[in-house]
Amino acid sequence: MISRGDDETAPAPRPSVSSPAVIGQLEVSDREIADAVAAVEGEMLELLARLVEAPTTLGNEEPGQVIMADAFRGLLGLEPVDIAMDTEVLRSHPAAAPFSWDVAGKRNVVADWPVAGEGGRSLVLQGHIDVVGPASTRLWRMPPFHAVRDGDWLYGRGSGDMKAGLAAMVGAVLGVRSLGLAPLAQVQLQSVVEEECGGNGALQCVLSGLRPDAAVIPEPYPGLIPTSQVGVLWFHVDIAGTPAHVADAQDGFNAIEAAFAVVKELHALEDELNESPPPPFDEIAHPINFNVGMISGGDWASTVAAECTLSCRIAQYPGSPVAELQRRVEAAVARAAVASAYLTEHPPSVRYDGFACEGSTLADDEPLVQSLSRSWEAVSGAPAGTGPTTATTDVRAFIEAGIPAACIGPLAEHIHGVDERVFVPSVVQTAHVLALFVRDWCGLA
Amino acid sequence: MISRGDDETAPAPRPSVSSPAVIGQLEVSDREIADAVAAVEGEMLELLARLVEAPTTLGNEEPGQVIMADAFRGLLGLEPVDIAMDTEVLRSHPAAAPFSWDVAGKRNVVADWPVAGEGGRSLVLQGHIDVVGPASTRLWRMPPFHAVRDGDWLYGRGSGDMKAGLAAMVGAVLGVRSLGLAPLAQVQLQSVVEEECGGNGALQCVLSGLRPDAAVIPEPYPGLIPTSQVGVLWFHVDIAGTPAHVADAQDGFNAIEAAFAVVKELHALEDELNESPPPPFDEIAHPINFNVGMISGGDWASTVAAECTLSCRIAQYPGSPVAELQRRVEAAVARAAVASAYLTEHPPSVRYDGFACEGSTLADDEPLVQSLSRSWEAVSGAPAGTGPTTATTDVRAFIEAGIPAACIGPLAEHIHGVDERVFVPSVVQTAHVLALFVRDWCGLA
Repeated sequence: MISRGDDETAPAPRPSVSSPAVIGQLEVSDREIADAVAAVEGEMLELLARLVEAPTTLGNEEPGQVIMADAFRGLLGLEPVDIAMDTEVLRSHPAAAPFSWDVAGKRNVVADWPVAGEGGRSLVLQGHIDVVGPASTRLWRMPPFHAVRDGDWLYGRGSGDMKAGLAAMVGAVLGVRSLGLAPLAQVQLQSVVEEECGGNGALQCVLSGLRPDAAVIPEPYPGLIPTSQVGVLWFHVDIAGTPAHVADAQDGFNAIEAAFAVVKELHALEDELNESPPPPFDEIAHPINFNVGMISGGDWASTVAAECTLSCRIAQYPGSPVAELQRRVEAAVARAAVASAYLTEHPPSVRYDGFACEGSTLADDEPLVQSLSRSWEAVSGAPAGTGPTTATTDVRAFIEAGIPAACIGPLAEHIHGVDERVFVPSVVQTAHVLALFVRDWCGLA
Repeated sequence: MISRGDDETAPAPRPSVSSPAVIGQLEVSDREIADAVAAVEGEMLELLARLVEAPTTLGNEEPGQVIMADAFRGLLGLEPVDIAMDTEVLRSHPAAAPFSWDVAGKRNVVADWPVAGEGGRSLVLQGHIDVVGPASTRLWRMPPFHAVRDGDWLYGRGSGDMKAGLAAMVGAVLGVRSLGLAPLAQVQLQSVVEEECGGNGALQCVLSGLRPDAAVIPEPYPGLIPTSQVGVLWFHVDIAGTPAHVADAQDGFNAIEAAFAVVKELHALEDELNESPPPPFDEIAHPINFNVGMISGGDWASTVAAECTLSCRIAQYPGSPVAELQRRVEAAVARAAVASAYLTEHPPSVRYDGFACEGSTLADDEPLVQSLSRSWEAVSGAPAGTGPTTATTDVRAFIEAGIPAACIGPLAEHIHGVDERVFVPSVVQTAHVLALFVRDWCGLA
């Protein structure tokens, strides 16, 4: 076991960037780590650019996984291993998100960093390879899947969320390895699929049986470790109308117009959920966001729309079961139907596909949180804060399995938006934080 | 010139079904025509079934045109000729509908019935081969592009609108030809494309230079000749929002939600247009129908929607220019924008693609109307009525060119709806009406 003194119990002041720390059998100073990580900035950014240029949207993750497997093998000299997505296992797991799409042939790619000794704490460093769509290609200043550097920013869909995190993971390991060092406990790097649609990639990895002492996911949370995250539910409302020639519009019932009423009731539910947020969500003005993210209806301008489908996301606080939120969503949709004689007879149906997860929390005094915060401070000069986030991340797959897991990562802007970008110095900084954290959490030799 | 006495000036009583009529150089009784048309019912219905099973939606019309060319040649012994859609001609014609899609390679198929003498009035019999989409495949009791006979009804998309009319045209000519007769003036059969999206197929045929004395389109108007039809405008509203991660929804602007406000203002315009309908539209409770026929927005449930597009149809009364309705639509969209600071800065844009036509009217005392009404009466026992219709049809291409044109046709239900069907006896009846009309309008020998 490595000395955990510095990491978990020592009070402020934290070591300055250049102060040496006694870690396991080895002294390696913050400065040496900083220099080693800085020296591999080129490799990191080249990897990041390659990743951004792979449009790894849902169903198209594999080219990104090929790049990550190459990086694990070629840059780091590790042996990548696949953790295949298993349809049956996922469909029968209570914490899995439901999914209508095909996952056969999809893989998470993991690689173990050979251990140099004993006594350290084990760790998973994880990032997700999948990205959301460009939202609107025409609104982007440049094509969304081109990695474009402009000053200190790198643009591109997924640059911040979270290909920079993946690149930083690789950079951290590459930097430490360049010093001839390796961890004193198992460190596994994981590049997972399907974070953006439900989290089943991370779950599949947890189900592989590895039980690390902690997991860190460098999602773009600069200086903030989100210790409370909401639960997220995706739901789809299918509304059936009665099509008719527009000339006989009175004989039809327009499913698109009915969708508007459904959205209105869902906003009422959103309002209810925001009325009395429990701590720590009471720090946030509007913690629960409902979003109608997609709509599709009708097939002809001169035909009264027969069908309309809404694809929505809503959130809830930790501690509330998914089924409870589903019940409230269904009740809201039913309220919209009650207002219409037609919809009362032809009620919209609610379908679940994608995210269906509870919120999760990690105590502020978890050793992981303390240690990660200090690693952040060693690099940035200020400890990382903790607090709630209005999003969910893959940490929950670990936390639900009893494994402490936390995010910290680079500065990104416009994730899921247009002109998504990541602040390049913060990518190197994140790699530096991760390298220090590996040193302090796992020990190095 | 044939004797027009019986057709245009003779008062009631109209000839009974079995009374002989002196037409041109030939006497052919209503009964002989009825029997001849009835004798080809099998051919007509087989053609109708083949047509229904060709899913001739926009862009997919050609298999239907192949069937029609085969019918003109194989069943009728005529020589089909193509009238190709001409992109440049259509784009520059003031009465053409704007179109974003490719029309190169598309054709209208026409065939002239060889003339047997002189002195008759010339005629175009026209139908459109294109159909609208199924609206909702799952709501249909049977697959929409299967022709299914159930008792006296034939089901299938386009069965009534208007493949039954095309089949009836062919049946009418086949029946008359089986009597060894031919018209005393040019009769051209036309199967046109793009009636459902703007009418440019019919326009292209009118632009071919043929100027018949009349045109009849057997759209499904049983017993009613629609002598006033609305003008129709298709417009598409493109709304741009600001995408964001749903966790930061406050940083985004949801284009889908903005679409709801736009629709609301367009309904207000619809209300205005229905306030004081001019005659004859004051006979109709709600003559002007606005329809949001399609909506599409967003690309991810957890992304605030960046884009939303509405595809809409609205109508106006004859006599009002298209530009005036466009102005009012744009004003309504602008009103929706004014209510939002964001939309004021990022106003939705209105795009025109498809229908952009004025209403059109035909006088009740037009010889065409009188003659067609009497042909209807000879078959059904009651004269056809006249009146306004809340739809538009391809007759306007002729009427705008100074050629009288009218619709009359079979009984159909659920056109543009689900389980569209046509009453089979009415298909034969329509063929019978058309045959009598050819006899009385053109003369036969």
